[in-house]
Amino acid sequence: MFLLALGLLAVFPTARAEDGYDLWLRYRPVQPQWSAAYRRGVSELVVPPSATKTLDIVQSELSRGLGGLLGTAPPLSSQPTKEGALLFGTPRASPAIARAGLDLGRLGPEGYRIHSLTLDGHRVIVIAGNEDVGVLYGAFHFLRLLQTHQPLEHLDIASAPRIRHRILDHWDNLDRTVERGYAGESIWDWHKLPDYLDPRYIDYARACASVGINGMVPTNVNGSAVSLTTPYLRKLAALADLFRPYGLHVYLTARFSAPLEIGGLPTADPLNPAVRAWWRAKADEIYGLIPDFGGFLVKANSEGQPGPQDYSRSHADGANMLAEAVAAHGGIVMWRAFVYSQRQPDDRAKQAYEEFVPLDGKFDSNVLLQVKNGPIDFQPREPFHPIFGAMPHTPLMLEVQITKEYLGFATHLVYLGPLFEEALRSDTYARGKGSTVADVVDGSLFGYAQTGMAGVANIGSDRNWTGSHFDQANWYVFGRLAWNPALSTRDIAEEWVRMTFTNDDSFVRPVVAMMMGSREAAVDYMTPLGLHHQMARDTHYGPAPWLSGGPRADWTSVYFNRADATGIGFDRTITGSNAVAQYAPPVAARFGDIKQVPDALLLWFHHVPWDYRMSSGRTLWDDLVIHYTHGVDVVRSMRQTWESLADKIDAERYAQVSTFLQIQENEARWWRDASIAYFQSLSHRPLPAGYSAPEHDLQYYESLCFPVVPGHTPLPPTCK
Amino acid sequence: MFLLALGLLAVFPTARAEDGYDLWLRYRPVQPQWSAAYRRGVSELVVPPSATKTLDIVQSELSRGLGGLLGTAPPLSSQPTKEGALLFGTPRASPAIARAGLDLGRLGPEGYRIHSLTLDGHRVIVIAGNEDVGVLYGAFHFLRLLQTHQPLEHLDIASAPRIRHRILDHWDNLDRTVERGYAGESIWDWHKLPDYLDPRYIDYARACASVGINGMVPTNVNGSAVSLTTPYLRKLAALADLFRPYGLHVYLTARFSAPLEIGGLPTADPLNPAVRAWWRAKADEIYGLIPDFGGFLVKANSEGQPGPQDYSRSHADGANMLAEAVAAHGGIVMWRAFVYSQRQPDDRAKQAYEEFVPLDGKFDSNVLLQVKNGPIDFQPREPFHPIFGAMPHTPLMLEVQITKEYLGFATHLVYLGPLFEEALRSDTYARGKGSTVADVVDGSLFGYAQTGMAGVANIGSDRNWTGSHFDQANWYVFGRLAWNPALSTRDIAEEWVRMTFTNDDSFVRPVVAMMMGSREAAVDYMTPLGLHHQMARDTHYGPAPWLSGGPRADWTSVYFNRADATGIGFDRTITGSNAVAQYAPPVAARFGDIKQVPDALLLWFHHVPWDYRMSSGRTLWDDLVIHYTHGVDVVRSMRQTWESLADKIDAERYAQVSTFLQIQENEARWWRDASIAYFQSLSHRPLPAGYSAPEHDLQYYESLCFPVVPGHTPLPPTCK
Repeated sequence: MFLLALGLLAVFPTARAEDGYDLWLRYRPVQPQWSAAYRRGVSELVVPPSATKTLDIVQSELSRGLGGLLGTAPPLSSQPTKEGALLFGTPRASPAIARAGLDLGRLGPEGYRIHSLTLDGHRVIVIAGNEDVGVLYGAFHFLRLLQTHQPLEHLDIASAPRIRHRILDHWDNLDRTVERGYAGESIWDWHKLPDYLDPRYIDYARACASVGINGMVPTNVNGSAVSLTTPYLRKLAALADLFRPYGLHVYLTARFSAPLEIGGLPTADPLNPAVRAWWRAKADEIYGLIPDFGGFLVKANSEGQPGPQDYSRSHADGANMLAEAVAAHGGIVMWRAFVYSQRQPDDRAKQAYEEFVPLDGKFDSNVLLQVKNGPIDFQPREPFHPIFGAMPHTPLMLEVQITKEYLGFATHLVYLGPLFEEALRSDTYARGKGSTVADVVDGSLFGYAQTGMAGVANIGSDRNWTGSHFDQANWYVFGRLAWNPALSTRDIAEEWVRMTFTNDDSFVRPVVAMMMGSREAAVDYMTPLGLHHQMARDTHYGPAPWLSGGPRADWTSVYFNRADATGIGFDRTITGSNAVAQYAPPVAARFGDIKQVPDALLLWFHHVPWDYRMSSGRTLWDDLVIHYTHGVDVVRSMRQTWESLADKIDAERYAQVSTFLQIQENEARWWRDASIAYFQSLSHRPLPAGYSAPEHDLQYYESLCFPVVPGHTPLPPTCK
Repeated sequence: MFLLALGLLAVFPTARAEDGYDLWLRYRPVQPQWSAAYRRGVSELVVPPSATKTLDIVQSELSRGLGGLLGTAPPLSSQPTKEGALLFGTPRASPAIARAGLDLGRLGPEGYRIHSLTLDGHRVIVIAGNEDVGVLYGAFHFLRLLQTHQPLEHLDIASAPRIRHRILDHWDNLDRTVERGYAGESIWDWHKLPDYLDPRYIDYARACASVGINGMVPTNVNGSAVSLTTPYLRKLAALADLFRPYGLHVYLTARFSAPLEIGGLPTADPLNPAVRAWWRAKADEIYGLIPDFGGFLVKANSEGQPGPQDYSRSHADGANMLAEAVAAHGGIVMWRAFVYSQRQPDDRAKQAYEEFVPLDGKFDSNVLLQVKNGPIDFQPREPFHPIFGAMPHTPLMLEVQITKEYLGFATHLVYLGPLFEEALRSDTYARGKGSTVADVVDGSLFGYAQTGMAGVANIGSDRNWTGSHFDQANWYVFGRLAWNPALSTRDIAEEWVRMTFTNDDSFVRPVVAMMMGSREAAVDYMTPLGLHHQMARDTHYGPAPWLSGGPRADWTSVYFNRADATGIGFDRTITGSNAVAQYAPPVAARFGDIKQVPDALLLWFHHVPWDYRMSSGRTLWDDLVIHYTHGVDVVRSMRQTWESLADKIDAERYAQVSTFLQIQENEARWWRDASIAYFQSLSHRPLPAGYSAPEHDLQYYESLCFPVVPGHTPLPPTCK
């Protein structure tokens, strides 16, 4: 027997590399003190008699998970035969579940209950839902209990999503380049679809389902109309067939000019009957191939994309045309509010509000307006978007960016949970105090018929999916928050760490603390005190607060920082662009008053003299330098924390994270030094005592040039 | 003990996926009938006292390999203490090896001996070389013996490379797109270099060393000059440091216009002193960072690339300028002979010869001219390049394409061994009968001071490295042939199958047979009887024998097939372009005579009437249809063979190969049907009895359009 076991071991001549592919579904053995209790707690797996694809997947995932966690998977049975039986299914599929008589009334189609009870004389655990997909979500929740070392006694869990559409937006092009992608090329191998189905597609669907993500848009919002041609729809249908049992719906970006480009029509005017007929026929074709197709995501009249305004029509005209095409099939349209005119505005932050708020109530009922968390563009910190709260008759989806376009790409450890949480908990005061963005988005504030939350995916072909091990947490927290925006992102970080690395508390505590502080550190070393959009042109790689010139002012850093000899910051009060007036009066009053505005948003809303006395008692200039420096210090301490944990986890992941933290520390220092060098050239003030001068002079930082940067089409090789 | 072993097993909740990452270095346990003998044969591993990085790698690879193959790695010792000790090293590093007194005189720096002998009273095996890298090559050879179930008794192996520079050319761009790449994006993550060293780089070096590849060019011949800037040289230096202990040298492509683009000079004229000084300084900078830098690879004045002819200088002028810059450092210049003028020629096949043969003897001694196997461009079949044999005073490297640009991309199973072997064994008659291309390339015919063989890599970030499991064999066979061009590619196929899949003869025999027939099948279903370049424009995906128009005639299919109502084929005899006259007289006589030319090259050299009577007794038209059809039949039978082997190997690799063979069968049928449909529209002849008509009409095939194809920049989305 021992020889046999050794023989089996020899099948694995080198230990399986911990390359991160397994994500948070690693299912490594639980600590010994838990395994006996868990084996008693789950003594057999009762398979419902009416199999469906989804229930087969549930059984397979439970067997795989429990097999990994407990060493061996519990035996299968068709009836509960002993203490510790685990049942799963819908009352329809499983007479035993039906006999258990659980109240599933308020769970909806995706909710579940996990309940300890006595059935046929045995203490059992039941995972039940109204529909198969709820059972699947419940199974992942159940596995999470074991993965995070929770007791299995007296379980009484009920959960249902508070947001209906929980969607990953992939900014992936058909040639597998990924706009703002830092994790390798797209995982969607369109050329080989529909014939070859990469096994990775299944692991993607498992990961999504495990956190409750129920929709995905595989194509870029800036993508081509080719994805709407019949050959590509057949490819998409193959993905949809794979994803369906996981409750995952496919959507497509709809390029507004598709009727011209692939339809042979002379116009894409949304009020033109031939155009409307073309989109209806296209929708019919799609639904013929993919009956549960989710709908369209549209970026129109923004950054050069075509749209209804090309024909002097409104966004509502455009959105409603597409909405009409998919309505009969139950589809939705997600129309992005991220628009800004080709003409240069007085304040880009105001544009989306001005464009869309007047259209409130003019959208068809299956249109959702997809609004970024802040009014500019996924900055390290923004105030909440003023549209939230301002459109009571239009379902507003929240769009967040999981990929770290402005937050250091893959190599910076920045846990985005606190950023998402900050946005969701912002109080719009739309219906008085306590009208949070989350209340808007989950529909409770205005009674929206449709609700949604979208995250711009950070997923690519890199073995670890997201370019770094810690960026997996951002995929994870997005899904968990989209399911329930009220969850604590600290709790989510902790469960992710336990599932992904280890339940060793001496690792979990410092790593969760490091994650929780990481976003504020990035704000500090990049854009403290309300600064924003200070990154290099186009690539957004590295600091460039000096950036000016080019085609439009609002694509420069100086437009946003407004720094000069007198001070720094964008006056968005009544004396400036008055963007502050787009917020509800109590919010406007707070943000608009330099005495009341939080330090963290000071320079977002105010142009402030360098010697302005901050609440700290120091001058603005000194505080600015201190914030930049603090950001670097925090990263250094993150790196040191990590180094102290070397023996707690596998060498492979330890080493990659360690190298990336070193890169992050170098780049944080670069951000700090370059920013201070530039702003000091304007403020002409000395650094506070004890704060070191930038390593190089300003000219050096301005001379740095990076001709090829991931996530962006290469620039001409102009660097000498 | 059993519980312990089970516990260890539980660390692997799901069996390690056979995803192909391990290549031919899988080291799975040998069959039981071999393991006892092997354990006796290798009872301990004697580590030389003077460690070097390379010898540490040898020890680690032997321990890893033997550990996998035998279940446990043999114990290490510092002296041979028993029968079956395995020693490795150089006489310098190991007194025991020195005592063994093996004659290593004729092995050179890279050769090795593997020898059974009695040492200190024990029967031992010695792996010895003059230099560490020879020992490393010998260690991989030794492991191959066990991997392929060879006896270890009475070993007396001596091996040294017959070609000095054995190089992989990566056509990889700095943005990680890969020109003609079908295995995902580039594995070179330039953005994170030099800080982050992907562990995959080491596995790449291991794989290269295991087949004797000793050089690599990580940048595209069509690449940008950015790779020559200091930041990128530092990145390259980090790779070079990693690769050095594996005997793997890095090279760079040199964009001829770099002095203008990154040097700030007003010219790149190779006779301009400032230009020459710039290249010398650049070479000095490179060698300062990478003392063993290999040299430059240049594509000049070809397909729009800049070159010396832009300044009315010759290729020799250009090559010698670069050669001078690297000569003092021991570097070489590989100057590609794949040039054709911007003006349309009477026959593209003649151009390289006309350009370069007059320059014979005019190149510096450290220049190698890199010549493709045939005069057009890596077609499924070409005659050997007429330059081979025609430049006795200029070292000629052979360039072959491992990536399957013209051979079905990743999804077609085409083993390229026979193609390479056919090229190498072609008789140039340059010094009379028996003057093969291999004799030219290995330097034996003309006494070249430098020898080389380059393969355009098929490597990318796909988990299996090469886009398909069987394409790994093409990387493998390239390396093995570059080491020794006289090897049998059937033998190489067999050893690769045994190492990569299984030693089960009932699998090995049919799979080797399938591989050996696969290239001829591709020739048949794509371009039989000497046809060439009938692929779709630019992308080279799928058939387009009707292709005409566009910027130049020699970028069309009709230019090459010359099909009309009277017949088909390119007259390259005296009555046509007379390209045949570029060959030595006996070859020219054979190729130029329609009665003597091999059927396989008939339409390469002759325009032939449709009713021409072939050696088969059938008409050309009938034989053409029969060849196309036979190609499809062979692929079908390959697929059926594979299906019969389902239980012989792992499910993962079985499934992917199976799907790909189905794709190949569909695409072979497409090639056959489209080609027959087009040529029949000209020949107006019926298909031979029993041969089915194309599935669709010609219009259908002509209408197919693929806007996005891997390995090629996307075309505008013109498909409707």
